[in-house]
Amino acid sequence: MNFFYIIIMVDYVDLSYEPNENDLVVMYFVEKAVDCESLEKACEEIAKESSIGTWTDILTMSADIAERLEPSAFYIDPQNQIIKIAYSEELFEADNMSQILSAIAGNIFGMKVINNLRLIDITFPKYIVSKYKGPKFGIKGIRKLTGVEKRPLLGTIVKPKVGLNEIEHAKVCEEAWMGGLDIVKDDENLTSMVFNKFDKRVEESLKARDRAQAETGEKKIYMPNITAKLSTMEERANIVINNGGEYVMVDIFTVGFSALQELRDYLDDKNVVIHAHRAMHAAFTRNKKHGITMLALAKIMRLIGMDQLHTGTIVGKMEGGKKEVLEINQVISEPNITGNNTTILDQEWGDIKPTLPVASGGLSPLHIPDLIKFLGNDIVYQFGGGCHGHPDGTRAGARAIRQAVDATLSGIQLEEYAKTKEELEKAIKKWRK
Amino acid sequence: MNFFYIIIMVDYVDLSYEPNENDLVVMYFVEKAVDCESLEKACEEIAKESSIGTWTDILTMSADIAERLEPSAFYIDPQNQIIKIAYSEELFEADNMSQILSAIAGNIFGMKVINNLRLIDITFPKYIVSKYKGPKFGIKGIRKLTGVEKRPLLGTIVKPKVGLNEIEHAKVCEEAWMGGLDIVKDDENLTSMVFNKFDKRVEESLKARDRAQAETGEKKIYMPNITAKLSTMEERANIVINNGGEYVMVDIFTVGFSALQELRDYLDDKNVVIHAHRAMHAAFTRNKKHGITMLALAKIMRLIGMDQLHTGTIVGKMEGGKKEVLEINQVISEPNITGNNTTILDQEWGDIKPTLPVASGGLSPLHIPDLIKFLGNDIVYQFGGGCHGHPDGTRAGARAIRQAVDATLSGIQLEEYAKTKEELEKAIKKWRK
Repeated sequence: MNFFYIIIMVDYVDLSYEPNENDLVVMYFVEKAVDCESLEKACEEIAKESSIGTWTDILTMSADIAERLEPSAFYIDPQNQIIKIAYSEELFEADNMSQILSAIAGNIFGMKVINNLRLIDITFPKYIVSKYKGPKFGIKGIRKLTGVEKRPLLGTIVKPKVGLNEIEHAKVCEEAWMGGLDIVKDDENLTSMVFNKFDKRVEESLKARDRAQAETGEKKIYMPNITAKLSTMEERANIVINNGGEYVMVDIFTVGFSALQELRDYLDDKNVVIHAHRAMHAAFTRNKKHGITMLALAKIMRLIGMDQLHTGTIVGKMEGGKKEVLEINQVISEPNITGNNTTILDQEWGDIKPTLPVASGGLSPLHIPDLIKFLGNDIVYQFGGGCHGHPDGTRAGARAIRQAVDATLSGIQLEEYAKTKEELEKAIKKWRK
Repeated sequence: MNFFYIIIMVDYVDLSYEPNENDLVVMYFVEKAVDCESLEKACEEIAKESSIGTWTDILTMSADIAERLEPSAFYIDPQNQIIKIAYSEELFEADNMSQILSAIAGNIFGMKVINNLRLIDITFPKYIVSKYKGPKFGIKGIRKLTGVEKRPLLGTIVKPKVGLNEIEHAKVCEEAWMGGLDIVKDDENLTSMVFNKFDKRVEESLKARDRAQAETGEKKIYMPNITAKLSTMEERANIVINNGGEYVMVDIFTVGFSALQELRDYLDDKNVVIHAHRAMHAAFTRNKKHGITMLALAKIMRLIGMDQLHTGTIVGKMEGGKKEVLEINQVISEPNITGNNTTILDQEWGDIKPTLPVASGGLSPLHIPDLIKFLGNDIVYQFGGGCHGHPDGTRAGARAIRQAVDATLSGIQLEEYAKTKEELEKAIKKWRK
């Protein structure tokens, strides 16, 4: 085995390299450490550590390995500190998202040669895309299931986040549905609590759903939070199905990629929409110079197969700029994406269905005109405090939300519409500053 | 249901509050947003969003819920921007780590009222600790299994990270074991590749281990990387066991908490040590003002039951200061911890065994005197490039590592010891700057 005797030098930077259709391409923002000689050097270290190299020359490297597997940093923009690296196909176990991330989003964040590193976007090549299921329903499937054809889907989160018992919870759901909302979801920290057990909550809430459907003649959706270790998530999904539920909700980042892939597989032959809540994402997405963008994570979630995904509100209590949120919604809901050199890469989605974006966090009926203007109709808008905080309670809050949507879609100002709509009028009075 | 009609005000800040033994306490670093009126206000919003509150008064809150469930921010240090919040028992599904994190490390990182937020540490109360298995082996169990009683365990990572086929891989392992190392591990991005299939690699490497054990009379360990979706990890763990393996390795952060808890349960009746690689951690641990500390994550990993955990090297290619690494090693390996007001909280570990720290990343034999001085003997030291990069190859590199450890433990300078040890001498020549 001659690789014990020859030192192979690998060129990790090759600006003349043109990625081929099997390459996985990653765009990073890189802030090199002060004592790192150049951006190119930092770039080389990133390409190396995320693929076949290490910090010193090794004798176990071979020319063959280098030729087959070396990644190529083919784009370096020193002005904006942005680089692109093309990774060859064989570096990845295509259907293993944890492995892919251990390579391109692994050790490199901790290297001393960089001060900051942000994974901006990933182009998944066709052969990787083809290994994933993507969303089972997609936007069309959800439109069909809910019967809501053109307007945004409207939802609430039961509040307080935790504290109500099962009966109280179901009652709040019923009030929201009766007031006109399509969807009620559990909050991210509500799973199976001592005072509110998952099975009883699901049973009671789905009974309430049936009552509300009968009463209103509209399709109603309950999204119970099944977040837990995998076997418990599977059990809870079955409880939902056995009680006639059609949706489950999962906290995707506190659950993690391995269990998510498994859960998607498990639910493949079941008729359940997966709603993805992104609690914890901002721990690694918020810093503009370091970590991983929500855009890249959102693409991964579409690939794995989340039908609905929280992506930001622009307005509301959570951070997230307009351009950022629009781009995230674009990459998860459009068929193919054309990239640029700053925020987004090309992506061909093949047979992968679109994920429906969800805007949630600090929203009230007063945000609706802006939300629809910025984010459109192919989306779920969720109002927690902005529903239950209505001076006349949940049902009135739900009505105010539907009224604000009706007004906006009819091109009427909220204040004008509120002249004949008591609930909207009171909502405006409470929340207009 | 009277909670529809009364607005309940909850006091989230109570500096006179004394946490009780069932409270889960979290210490955060908080940098408030410019337009947030005070640190106390930011603190209130954090306590609220991570428990029972939302951004506006809601009519579904009740006095009973507030009394039972309200968290109390009981410590605010404006100088250091550090706060502590005590969360009541009922806010958590004790055995569901994903749920716990969705609460205390969830939405709060994205709130507009803060610019930065860092979860520093968590005190898990007894009733939560008792719901987790912790490490199956612990440090004593690993000492017994490996037969290495007092010195540090010494290992290498097969390099290049990926690229060798199964036979070449096993050969590198054998060389390392023959040279005197105890452990050989796969790297974080090596799972089952087109050119190196998991099952064949495990079979070949464990055969090589048997040969090395027979030849050297020493116990040898191979740690195959089973990182994948959960069912695949379980299959691969069985392949390891069926081939006589005693260790598995997993990339804990790209796998995620849900699958990890499940994997620990799955392996409970099997005789397998779990080695935890932390690829991706620096995406959320590195920024000193935002994210989650490695210390807090390390405690979670001990609780879930990782037997060995990468925690930093102090020296080497990865960032991580001395104080930080020492504190992490302390919290995962000591029986009980006394906290402070800046970096670490009290923790009683009950029956939870200690996790063995692992130092890995950019280490060469020349680092050994510092490593032992700083980090001691109850630890695994791993040398990748610092083994295979030896001028005479892997076996010589392994010998140089053992020689450097022997020298250091005998109180002899490396240069002195190298006078009669060719391998160490050549290592010094290559890596001494």
